[in-house]
This record gives sequence, C-alpha cells and structure tokens, in this order.
Amino acid sequence: MQDQTLPGILLSELRAQPPLVHCITNFVAMNIAANVLLAAGASPAMVHAEEEAGEFAAIAGALTINIGTLSSSWLRGMEAAALAASQSGKPWVLDPVAHYATLFRRAAVDRLLELGPTVIRGNASEIIALAGGESRGQGVDSRDEVEQAEESARLLARTHGATVAVTGVVDFVTDGERTARIEGGSPLMPQVTALGCSLTCLVGAFTAIRPAAPFEATVAALATFAVAGEMAASRADGPGSFSPAFLDALAALDAPLLDRHARVRSA
Amino acid sequence: MQDQTLPGILLSELRAQPPLVHCITNFVAMNIAANVLLAAGASPAMVHAEEEAGEFAAIAGALTINIGTLSSSWLRGMEAAALAASQSGKPWVLDPVAHYATLFRRAAVDRLLELGPTVIRGNASEIIALAGGESRGQGVDSRDEVEQAEESARLLARTHGATVAVTGVVDFVTDGERTARIEGGSPLMPQVTALGCSLTCLVGAFTAIRPAAPFEATVAALATFAVAGEMAASRADGPGSFSPAFLDALAALDAPLLDRHARVRSA
Amino acid sequence: MQDQTLPGILLSELRAQPPLVHCITNFVAMNIAANVLLAAGASPAMVHAEEEAGEFAAIAGALTINIGTLSSSWLRGMEAAALAASQSGKPWVLDPVAHYATLFRRAAVDRLLELGPTVIRGNASEIIALAGGESRGQGVDSRDEVEQAEESARLLARTHGATVAVTGVVDFVTDGERTARIEGGSPLMPQVTALGCSLTCLVGAFTAIRPAAPFEATVAALATFAVAGEMAASRADGPGSFSPAFLDALAALDAPLLDRHARVRSA
Repeated sequence: MQDQTLPGILLSELRAQPPLVHCITNFVAMNIAANVLLAAGASPAMVHAEEEAGEFAAIAGALTINIGTLSSSWLRGMEAAALAASQSGKPWVLDPVAHYATLFRRAAVDRLLELGPTVIRGNASEIIALAGGESRGQGVDSRDEVEQAEESARLLARTHGATVAVTGVVDFVTDGERTARIEGGSPLMPQVTALGCSLTCLVGAFTAIRPAAPFEATVAALATFAVAGEMAASRADGPGSFSPAFLDALAALDAPLLDRHARVRSA
Repeated sequence: MQDQTLPGILLSELRAQPPLVHCITNFVAMNIAANVLLAAGASPAMVHAEEEAGEFAAIAGALTINIGTLSSSWLRGMEAAALAASQSGKPWVLDPVAHYATLFRRAAVDRLLELGPTVIRGNASEIIALAGGESRGQGVDSRDEVEQAEESARLLARTHGATVAVTGVVDFVTDGERTARIEGGSPLMPQVTALGCSLTCLVGAFTAIRPAAPFEATVAALATFAVAGEMAASRADGPGSFSPAFLDALAALDAPLLDRHARVRSA
Repeated sequence: MQDQTLPGILLSELRAQPPLVHCITNFVAMNIAANVLLAAGASPAMVHAEEEAGEFAAIAGALTINIGTLSSSWLRGMEAAALAASQSGKPWVLDPVAHYATLFRRAAVDRLLELGPTVIRGNASEIIALAGGESRGQGVDSRDEVEQAEESARLLARTHGATVAVTGVVDFVTDGERTARIEGGSPLMPQVTALGCSLTCLVGAFTAIRPAAPFEATVAALATFAVAGEMAASRADGPGSFSPAFLDALAALDAPLLDRHARVRSA
C-alpha cells in the first residue's frame, strides 16, 4: 500500500461511482456541506426525520451524523439512522460537535457512541473530552492542539473499534493501531463556519467506497480537503472569497493533482 | 401571444411590484432561495410553523412548498399553508423532492397533492414517479432525462389541473394542453445544491404576478433562471464561483436582456 | 468619550478576547451570521434546544435571539435562554423579525420583551410596530424610513430600559437618552438575505465586551458593519459577489481603518 497514492485512487472511484451520502448535520452546515459533497463528486441527501431516517440510511452508501444544532426530535432521527446503518452494514461517521458543552449533548453522544460509529471526527478539544480527558474547548472552538489529542484518539479508537480523526493544523488519524498525519489546508479554514462539519460529510462519502477500509477512506477524505484548501487559499483574499474558491478547487481536483500535492505521513 | 417576449414583460412587472413570496422550503435551500428571490426582485419570507403558516399564506402573493428536509411538524405547517392559499385563491407551487425515496415522503406528497397545487416542479425522476411511473432516481438526484418524463408531466397536469415543470438540461412545461421547452442554463447548475429548490421559489414569485396564467408564469421563471445561468457560467471557474455570479447575473438581468437571450419553444 | 474612536477600541478588544456568542437565529441566517461573527473575530455558537439553551446562555458572553423562522419548540428554547442570560447578568439582543405579521409572532415577542432584552434591533417597520405604532411592513421588509421610527425607538428604549437600534440607509441608535446615527453600508445590503439578522449577532458580540455599555457596543457593531459594507461594495458586481467581499472586508477591517472610515454622529 502506498499512502501517497491511495487518496487519488479513492477520489477516482468516488467520481466514477458517486455514492449517495445520507447527512444528518446542523443548520449552519447544511448548504456548504451539500456543496462540498457535490464538488467532490458525491451525491448528498439531507434527511433527518425520525419517520424516514432509518429507511433512508439503509438505502444510502454511508451516513454522517453531526450534533451541531441538536434537539430531541433530531436525536431520535439520528438514533434511528445510526441503528439502520449499523444493521445494514453501512459505514457511519459521528461528529460530536461541542459535546462537552452541555448535559444534553453529553447524553446524546453517549447514546450515539453505543450504536458503533465507523469513524469519529472532531477537533482536539472534542476528542480529548470524548476519551474522558480534560479539554479546554469553548463553545464549538477547540482550545487544544491536535498533538495533545493523539493519545485520546488512540484510546477512543480502541474502545469503540472505530477510526478516529482529529483535525486541526495537521490532522491525525488512527484506527487504534495505524496512524497517519495529513498536512495542508489553510489558516483561513477555521475562519469559515462549518468546514469541519462539511469534512465529516466528505469522510462519509469516502467510507462509502467499497472495499476501502475506514482508515484509508478517512485519510483520503482529509487529504482531498487539505489539498483543495491549499489550492483555494492561493486565490482567496479572506474567508469570504475562500468559500467559493474552495468549492472550485474541490471540483477541479483530480487524482493526479491529489497524488502530487497530498502530504500524508504514516506515523 | 409572443412566447419570446412574455418572460420579459413579466420580469418587468415583478420588479415594478415585488410580490411577497411565502416559502416553506428545506434547510439546505433556505439561504440561496431567499437570495435568488431578492436578486430577481421579489420579497421572500420563510415561515413554516403550523401556528402561523396558514395566516401568512393568506397575506402573501404566492406560496411555495418543498419537502426536501421534511418532518411531521413541518408537514402540518405545509398543509395549513396550502389550504389557506387554496381558500384565498393564491397560487402555490409544490416541489416534491425525492418523494419516491421513503414511505413518509410518498404519504406527505399524496396529502399535499389533494390540496391542489397550481404548479408542480420537479426533476424527471420525481415527475415520472409522481405520475405513477417507474423512476430511477437515487436520493435527490434524477437518473432520468427530461424527455422521458414528458408524458408523465402531461398526465399529472391533466389529473391535477396543474401546470407541471420538468427541469433538466432542457426544461419542459405543460398545463396538459400547451407545452413549452426552455433551453439555457449551465452544466454547473446541478453541481450547486438547492438551485432547483430556488427555482421553485422563483416560479412562485412569477405566479404571484396577476393576471399571468400559471403556465406563462412558470415559463417566464424558467427562462429567467436559464438566461441568468448562462450569463453566470461565462464568468465562473467552477460551482463555487458560479453561485455569486448567478445572483449577480439575476440581479443584472432586465427585460431586454431576457427577451434577447431567452430560448423558449412552444412544442 | 470620543464617538469616532470608541468603535475601533471595542473592535480591538473583541479581536484580543473573542467572545463566545450564543445565537438563536433563523434558518436563513444561520450560515451567514456565523461567518460574519468569525470574520469579525468572535466565536459563534448556534444552540436552540429547550434542553440546553438555558445552560449554554449562562456560559456564553452574550445571547442573540431572532424570531425569523419561529416555531413553538424554538420559542421555548428562546425563553429558556433569555431567562438564563438575564439571571446570569449576560447581555442579550432581540431581533423581532416581522413580528407584526401574525398573531403567533406578536405573542412570542410580547413574552420575549418581558424577559428584558439589553438591545433591540430591527428595521423601521418592526420598531414602529413594536412601540405600538402603525407600520407599513410587508413580510420581512420595511416599508418605512428610519427617520419615521426614531420616536418609536426612544419610547421603546425608555419603556424597556433597553438600547434600541433601527437600521436602514442611516442607522439610528438610542438608549432613551443618548442617540447616534451611523452612516455607511451599501444599497446592495438589503438585496442580500439575512444581513440584518447577522448584524444582530454582531451586536451581541460587541455587547459581550466588558465594560462597554450596550449603547456604545451597539454603535460600534453598526459602525463596523457599515464600514465593511462600504469597502465590500467597491469590489462587488452585484448582491452575489457582495457577500464574499463583505466577509473579506470584515476580516480585513482593523481599528485604524474603522476609526478612519466610521461615520457616527451623536444626535
């Protein structure tokens, strides 16, 4: 396996056979996440109601769940969807946005974790807190560095049999045994809301590519995002012009470009 | 009647007397749909709660209903609004997003159809399935061509006494008797999320112009969208830069430009 | 006190210590409002559920409540959050979007007003109607001029012990005694949806800076918005390109630029 080229192979496969990605995400992220999936070549569908979320998860290629703007009724939809995904062998990705901030969020994430996410993606503060550590997160922002979350990520991965991604200046991915670090992106990215949430949806798209393992799929999604982010930053004048440039870059990205610019290190 | 110039006349009337358009649309489309209406010259209002949707529909110039991110409570608001629109003689437009995907959606659309939409707008897969045919839709994406949906559209129009629009590479509109085809737009448009949903809202805006008939109003809305799409594509580097360019083009579009560039064929 | 430089001082303080701003806003505004706060240097968090809104309001630096896409369950979250903010001495800002349009909205705003907002921001029609006057608002759009709302704003400010901001071509702010007018912005701004809602969130960010008084914080937020709007307009080709240019301008704005370009008049 060559880490440097697998992202390119997976991106080509995603483009050749666009996966249907069932996203239950927050109200802030809805539009940009759908546009990120379309630009990458996947087919997004936002479906959250308890009455249909399970039925839809079973027909989608993958599911992503993000608790950003949580409510009780949405939580029921999330649980129905995660259960259906698990039962039908579909991968699903959990994004535990600011789960440490309130009792309601902590309880919700505990229930979702019991349903066995395939991948967990968060910022350093979220991953540290999820593994039982002391995080310094404020609101939805991380106040911790990725490096400080690596041990927590390994612990989480082993406890839940999941791939765990900690994203930040340099991303870290582990399935409990293997680890990878992905460089790239731009300092403008944290200034644009919901890009992390959109990345969670893109991880879902890559996990839908069979027979890619969740670890490789996650690394490929993060590398795709990081390269598109670098390309966009060179054309942006600030966080506002970054967003359209990022979607343009993602749509223009192909396997050769990705292979050339992805900076993935096994660690 | 000159099909080639009616869109221009209606666009001028819309600008002269901005209609208040009551939109119940999905979370993905909310922002871009409101911006599309503002750029076109209309006055959007997003109001969904059961407690007020009926009251608001009665004061608006037209109503649009899109089931993209459906839930039970929103469905109650949609029904209250559609009923009030019908009772007060206001036109309303139905966008049956991916109604074939789940039982919940199918049942919802059946109930909304009974309330007598003035216009139904969908992609080919949605219109085929709505007329009882076998569609190949996956998630929210059409897998069928507009041409394959023409008979279904005619059948739907006659059954429900509605104008039906099938949008795609070349749009098709029928009121059961008359038909029109509208060319234009850009291959970038399906790569931008919720543009179809936004078009549904724009159709609503044009139906609010009295005494335009729903068929002519729908054709005018689709022609406006198609011409703005062509103008925007010439300035866009991808789906990200397309969106702002599209809103700029829509705002810059006037009757003479529309008359010159609209490609509407009676068929 | 020098009105001309206080906005710059407050912007510097906001950047130096980014406040966590708890926003309960409408679905149209969610994304752009979060991006406005990030570009300005604040840390937005969208949290609306009754189960956690009160808990979250108590840890945030300020709260903003906007009734744009109201529902009963969201209203319960708004009330819990406003109560918690009041009880913990946190400033909170009310944006009574189109409150005159339906009975449901009027009743909701009455209940929220009883919880003592620190600042009320609206367009002229909203402020006139809130003070018991006869407004000509249609849907969410003002049909009245700012000048016509000045007496209503003073009355509201005195009745509720709040700072009241009426925004439009020239903004007007009063705490019942002092008044200020803020010039700037661009005619493109009303053509972009939810910029007013985003401004409400930015007012919240400035009120979180201690020990700035609500009146000065509101003036500073409006001046920041107006200067960024002017800067953006010079680079925009229409309402579509205005949005990214506005976020870029807001991110590029610093205290010296703000001091130089802000046009605030005590009145």
